[in-house]
Amino acid sequence: MHRVVIVGAGFGGLFAARALRRADVEITLINGTAYHLFQPLLYQVATGILSEGEIAPPIREILRKQDNVDVRLGWVTGVDAAAKKVSVEAPGLEYEVEYDTLIVAAGASQSYFGNDQFADHAPGMKSIDDALELRARIFGAFELADLQTDPEAVERWLTFVVVGAGPTGVEMAGQIAELAHRTLPGQYKRIDPRKARVILVDAIDAVLTSFGDQLATRALRQLHLLGVEVELKTKVVGVDATGIDVETPRGHERIGSMTKMWAAGVAAPPLAKALAEATGAPTDRAGRIEVRPDLTVPGHPEIFAVGDMMSLDGLPGVAQVAIQGGRYAADQIKRRLAGKEPRGPFKYLDKGSMATISRFSAVASVGRFRFSGFIGWLMWLAVHLLYLVGFKNRVTAVLHWAVSFLGRGRSERVSTFQQAFARAAVREYGDPFERLPQPHRHP
Amino acid sequence: MHRVVIVGAGFGGLFAARALRRADVEITLINGTAYHLFQPLLYQVATGILSEGEIAPPIREILRKQDNVDVRLGWVTGVDAAAKKVSVEAPGLEYEVEYDTLIVAAGASQSYFGNDQFADHAPGMKSIDDALELRARIFGAFELADLQTDPEAVERWLTFVVVGAGPTGVEMAGQIAELAHRTLPGQYKRIDPRKARVILVDAIDAVLTSFGDQLATRALRQLHLLGVEVELKTKVVGVDATGIDVETPRGHERIGSMTKMWAAGVAAPPLAKALAEATGAPTDRAGRIEVRPDLTVPGHPEIFAVGDMMSLDGLPGVAQVAIQGGRYAADQIKRRLAGKEPRGPFKYLDKGSMATISRFSAVASVGRFRFSGFIGWLMWLAVHLLYLVGFKNRVTAVLHWAVSFLGRGRSERVSTFQQAFARAAVREYGDPFERLPQPHRHP
Repeated sequence: MHRVVIVGAGFGGLFAARALRRADVEITLINGTAYHLFQPLLYQVATGILSEGEIAPPIREILRKQDNVDVRLGWVTGVDAAAKKVSVEAPGLEYEVEYDTLIVAAGASQSYFGNDQFADHAPGMKSIDDALELRARIFGAFELADLQTDPEAVERWLTFVVVGAGPTGVEMAGQIAELAHRTLPGQYKRIDPRKARVILVDAIDAVLTSFGDQLATRALRQLHLLGVEVELKTKVVGVDATGIDVETPRGHERIGSMTKMWAAGVAAPPLAKALAEATGAPTDRAGRIEVRPDLTVPGHPEIFAVGDMMSLDGLPGVAQVAIQGGRYAADQIKRRLAGKEPRGPFKYLDKGSMATISRFSAVASVGRFRFSGFIGWLMWLAVHLLYLVGFKNRVTAVLHWAVSFLGRGRSERVSTFQQAFARAAVREYGDPFERLPQPHRHP
Repeated sequence: MHRVVIVGAGFGGLFAARALRRADVEITLINGTAYHLFQPLLYQVATGILSEGEIAPPIREILRKQDNVDVRLGWVTGVDAAAKKVSVEAPGLEYEVEYDTLIVAAGASQSYFGNDQFADHAPGMKSIDDALELRARIFGAFELADLQTDPEAVERWLTFVVVGAGPTGVEMAGQIAELAHRTLPGQYKRIDPRKARVILVDAIDAVLTSFGDQLATRALRQLHLLGVEVELKTKVVGVDATGIDVETPRGHERIGSMTKMWAAGVAAPPLAKALAEATGAPTDRAGRIEVRPDLTVPGHPEIFAVGDMMSLDGLPGVAQVAIQGGRYAADQIKRRLAGKEPRGPFKYLDKGSMATISRFSAVASVGRFRFSGFIGWLMWLAVHLLYLVGFKNRVTAVLHWAVSFLGRGRSERVSTFQQAFARAAVREYGDPFERLPQPHRHP
């Protein structure tokens, strides 16, 4: 039986596996976590709207009715393109899996543009751990502000800086502003949460650049209405415990802030480099694999790279590119096995982009049409509801979400101090593979 | 204005604060976390039924309509009974709060009976971090079992040991068995989750001893029906990475198991010792404050100790004792302020005990009546539903819970590797107060 190995259960890998559900193949789907992460809603976990379970269904549950797939936990660390096998690390063991066709869809990592030390003070927005850490820091900041006696300290604790004005950054900034203005007022004796400053910083000169000028302008207006301060053409040159240093058009400035978050850049994961070395494939500046028009790695028609880790015609790193890429690769495999002509080059169909800015306000771009405000928000809601319902089939999760999102409350405000500082402890503690009684590794 | 300081927002502290809502007092409620923890459902977080947010509403939200209370984050580290003030540590700062009346309700800690090294391998069941760590270990065990090639290793990963056959241990064991038999079958290629062994161990000779012989016997039968192996008169003498050593009536035995959990003992928190030293109050063997019949500390009628950290007439460490104690203390304060006669000694009204063993099966003891099986379960459900609805006022949470609990799925299966090993890393990393850029401390 033809063996298909899929690396990564993000949008690309998962949709490839599903598209092969009736194919006469043996699929091994290898992922570093047991769940698929619905990344576009990660910011809602960080801001207390959703629980982590609601955006991260177990892969085994999604694919439980698909008999031709074997889900395996592990991190693919290497590819042997000659022997057609991948090597995998899992907690406490290593294994290899042979393939006839390989689909690599390992996503992207956060990039700090060479300033990895920023990560200690400005967590990224890529994983559940990131979101829970940010949740702990955001809600913790209001608690700690309330305890300060020095007015400057209060101000630092009530200043939130979001770096990166793409969809994730815009959505985070909007939700923190809503939290400060809508959820928390009246709950503190000494501070007024409405005095919190939310500052959205980006080096370029617009928010949501991928949405086009018209929506960018509307998004900017909606952010201003929410009270978000947007600092464009502003480059972050330093991040430390108590603030952030920026180069603005006005010159160098220092923003005092205890709570910073990073939604600014992505880089190819380590596996992209390993794959490039194994196959001689070229990579772009971000380290992504430059694939052929049919998404295969040059010289290796049996290896597809899809989603955020591949580079082709400047396609954006969005869920739809990964989903369509995964399906395209699956289709090519089915055609090959059936002896049919291969499909033509991969064509990305832009189904539109949308970003929610606050309750009742979003921007959406669909084909030639642009929507913003309430209409944009309704569209955003419809698409996400449909997706969640269809994908997770959990009525209560959607209800929970609708109620939290429509109401003023945040039902998932809980976080622990451990979550707030585990990352730093774990990094310094060292590789738990080596040290822990029950070995586990942070993916 | 009369100043009441309440230490701890568990059942005792929270109900004391609410009972004082119409009193002419200024309340300061100090707690180490921003949330109240509904501890009786912690095992449902650990086994993927509920999210942590659903059992831990923010204290500020619960008390948002009560103007006479000031909620403050912090750990009370000392009491100055002469100057009538408490000293508090919070992340990055220390402060003091003066009181006219003090209610100390700081709960209990996990006790390993002098074997604290067991904690590394057998997490307790006291905090959200505990529950998330256990969730990561339990679900991770099935993932890792599926990857093992050595049959003995598979068996070790599929063996779960719960130490302590009180309500928490019984409920944990029951839920892991249900997980193995009801939720996970069919989701793995190489293992059969139904082959998982769940072993419940206790040094005494019955489960649920506080429920009386009749219910203990029924609970034992229900556990057997679920496939749980119950090992009584079995003392744990060692816990390490790959198993547990026990002294059984048959002699010394070794149980190979990668996943152990500890629900066996409680000890007074460090604050009990500080309070005893500050007031000269006697303590019992577990370190709990021996209070006078009116719940005050001997020689200090202005200091009440309620809930798990006080010792009186052998009252059990259950939520109802804390709730009634908190209300009693509040009532005494109101009487004193009104110049009324004090109430007589604190009388605990046993409203009954219940423990759920599996879906559709529980044991309940109410007054002279004993219920078990489906009737017991309906009672358990009704009480918890009423409590959750009344207390948290969140219809969706209850719906979510009902659907998860009635269905086969577990909607909160997500956990991260970081959660699985953060405790060990954090402990070795040292006090984050000293080291972290944004200081936080594990309570």
